[in-house]
Amino acid sequence: MTRYMDVHHGMQGITADELRQAHQADLAIEAEEGVHFERAWADPDAGIVYCLSEAPSADAVARIHERTGHKPDEIHAVPLSV
Amino acid sequence: MTRYMDVHHGMQGITADELRQAHQADLAIEAEEGVHFERAWADPDAGIVYCLSEAPSADAVARIHERTGHKPDEIHAVPLSV
Repeated sequence: MTRYMDVHHGMQGITADELRQAHQADLAIEAEEGVHFERAWADPDAGIVYCLSEAPSADAVARIHERTGHKPDEIHAVPLSV
Repeated sequence: MTRYMDVHHGMQGITADELRQAHQADLAIEAEEGVHFERAWADPDAGIVYCLSEAPSADAVARIHERTGHKPDEIHAVPLSV
């Protein structure tokens, strides 16, 4: 398992409810790909959402996000953290 | 206090020790600006570092990072999180 940070652009105006609903949708199916979405943070003004996950691959992260309707623009393995 | 995600590019090859040392340098002086750096994650291949903080302003985040030698390329307020 590797930790990933994925990034979504174009999310201007996202609300707390929308972020929570998107996260819940991911949580509902993430186990099918062995992914776990840990946290997400949103900048509604710039329209950016960052999602932190643990997953077997970047493709697994992408597949869950695509199935729940929010394909990420970037997915980065972040093996280092403090 | 607002939560911020700042992003550093051009960090290809960063090591776990370098990330830890950079974070420790920030922690050592962050109180002077009322900032707290909570976490950081690095993708050494793409050369990207993400730092999560709580701070009174984006400028305060920038000033601490600049004084410790790693000015961020982007700073985003992320008032929404799950």
